[in-house]
Amino acid sequence: MEKQIETYLYKNIPITQAMGIQVEVASANKVILWAPFANNINHKKTIFGGSLHAVATLACWCLLYVNLKEVSEGQFQIVITKSDVDYLAPVDDDFKVECLIPETSEWQKFINMLHLKGKARIKLSAKIFHKDRLCVDYKATFAAIRA
Amino acid sequence: MEKQIETYLYKNIPITQAMGIQVEVASANKVILWAPFANNINHKKTIFGGSLHAVATLACWCLLYVNLKEVSEGQFQIVITKSDVDYLAPVDDDFKVECLIPETSEWQKFINMLHLKGKARIKLSAKIFHKDRLCVDYKATFAAIRA
Repeated sequence: MEKQIETYLYKNIPITQAMGIQVEVASANKVILWAPFANNINHKKTIFGGSLHAVATLACWCLLYVNLKEVSEGQFQIVITKSDVDYLAPVDDDFKVECLIPETSEWQKFINMLHLKGKARIKLSAKIFHKDRLCVDYKATFAAIRA
Repeated sequence: MEKQIETYLYKNIPITQAMGIQVEVASANKVILWAPFANNINHKKTIFGGSLHAVATLACWCLLYVNLKEVSEGQFQIVITKSDVDYLAPVDDDFKVECLIPETSEWQKFINMLHLKGKARIKLSAKIFHKDRLCVDYKATFAAIRA
């Protein structure tokens, strides 16, 4: 699944290839994306905030993609509607973003609404740790809509 | 100034070149950045949310860069600490991001604090309009710190 999603990203969202993103884990419960320092460096020799946000967005998108693929063979469009991000500390190396599935009750409400109404929203979060410290705390709302 | 900043971005934040960003206006009061559809497309044939956010972040950064260059010949580091973004409608073409200087009282407080303490925070906003509609409403807090 990891290689398949990576190929999908490179083909359909070409900036992900320029960012050098690799899909390390893409399961129904957890997504981990990796990105290299060199491609995403800024003038302070740390990771550009836009790259941190972009990779976190993709991690959340991948989690929904993997899960909704199982539900309905890709009949749903996934759209970001809101993001709230705290940049707590700089990242000065290759980095990973982790997105975990929300708690069961929230997730089930989302899936039920999706089946019932053909559209639903869910809040996801993604985190970037570096040197044992939380550097980026990313929260976003995504909408899934029956195509 | 526009070409100079564009060259600076491409050299120091290489992902900006992959995104095809061009600096249309870079004045003390207003920054407008432009980015092409093709480089920033996603699987839905609209602009990838990560690119929308990244270009908005850079517009705000440029506004601070231009102003602080005048204040102190680049002695300040500019860091994003928080971003809150509403993605109101998809963008399916080349797009522009506009960032305006905040109202005078806010700006003056920021500059005074910067001189007094050597660091200060400011809230900036950037907007992406497409087909006469506000598509992305971007707000972020930036810190400037004496190097």
